[in-house]
Amino acid sequence: MSALLETLQWRYATKKMDPTKTVPQDKVERILEAVRLTASSSGLHPYEVFVVTNPALREQIKPHAWNQSQVTDASHLLVFAAWDNYTVERINARFDLVNAVRGFKNEGWEAYRQQILATYPQRDAETNYQHAARQAYIGVGTALIAAAQEKVDSTPMEGFDPAKVDEILNLREKGLRSVVMLPLGYRADEGDWLVDLKKVRPAREQFITELA
Amino acid sequence: MSALLETLQWRYATKKMDPTKTVPQDKVERILEAVRLTASSSGLHPYEVFVVTNPALREQIKPHAWNQSQVTDASHLLVFAAWDNYTVERINARFDLVNAVRGFKNEGWEAYRQQILATYPQRDAETNYQHAARQAYIGVGTALIAAAQEKVDSTPMEGFDPAKVDEILNLREKGLRSVVMLPLGYRADEGDWLVDLKKVRPAREQFITELA
Repeated sequence: MSALLETLQWRYATKKMDPTKTVPQDKVERILEAVRLTASSSGLHPYEVFVVTNPALREQIKPHAWNQSQVTDASHLLVFAAWDNYTVERINARFDLVNAVRGFKNEGWEAYRQQILATYPQRDAETNYQHAARQAYIGVGTALIAAAQEKVDSTPMEGFDPAKVDEILNLREKGLRSVVMLPLGYRADEGDWLVDLKKVRPAREQFITELA
Repeated sequence: MSALLETLQWRYATKKMDPTKTVPQDKVERILEAVRLTASSSGLHPYEVFVVTNPALREQIKPHAWNQSQVTDASHLLVFAAWDNYTVERINARFDLVNAVRGFKNEGWEAYRQQILATYPQRDAETNYQHAARQAYIGVGTALIAAAQEKVDSTPMEGFDPAKVDEILNLREKGLRSVVMLPLGYRADEGDWLVDLKKVRPAREQFITELA
């Protein structure tokens, strides 16, 4: 079995984190860097990640997340927040950044910019937000792997009231909407009903179809 | 730098695949297995992956994907197809599978099943499809990493007409809708405008906010 498959077998949605343990900063940095480096549609990276360690903020969030204990027991709460819309300014900022880093304008790239500018800003905000939110899930899939490779436990969470989290973290005024939360920490020695249960996935035959 | 970060630096959205090279089956299997093993909301894994090697099918798809050459030049075309809706049958099948594999019924798990059954099937199909499609993006993020760790090139593609791909692969009659395609292959020695260009990402300060 490859190291990646072992990593994916090891991880699970940790239900009880040990509140006395803190993920070292260098591990957190490598997890965040993996998210920063992964792919997104047209390279727009239309989301940001908030790293909430502040205890008061996490206490405020918890009741709006079904009181899931990981929100406060984990040492770091990552909140993935997607752009609420694609605007001309946001798109240009990303394309300009590419030119600035590469040090030149590429004709094909500029034509592609015009294609995106002629499409995205004209769509309704909800369609654009949904598209941006999907990209954040690439980031979540990446963070899960990055955390597990550091032997850090994590729990992807959709079970929260996004409007409340947006309010607590002032996301709307930044043009962002919360999509997924990912507490990072270490599993508790006791109290996790899921830790010893077998991982269950649909069988290969139910999941994969070969058209040869 | 960790192996994962090196892997993410190595990968790029390959623009020109070498049509004479074929990804070995054991590598394809490990990439698919990583997708099968990764996380999804409530463990429902509400998507399937179609592995299209058939040349005629790929020729049919290509014009509906902006004629992107990777569709036919790659040796394998992965098509991620999400459930078009969450139904009582689909939800029960997944929960039943968990019980069957674990060999017992867990009270909390059964309560959770009832909560999902009381929520998802009542929502409109489009909302459910959007939720399922997001999960497929976790799979895409996973597949990108799995491929790169095998030194296999890949290109995540949203630029195609999903209705046409659904038709060509008969997805709608299976209750599925195409979401993302991911050709797997090997970069060509020449003709890829992107291969030598620097990877550009938003800076850490633009992407990460710490709330301590």
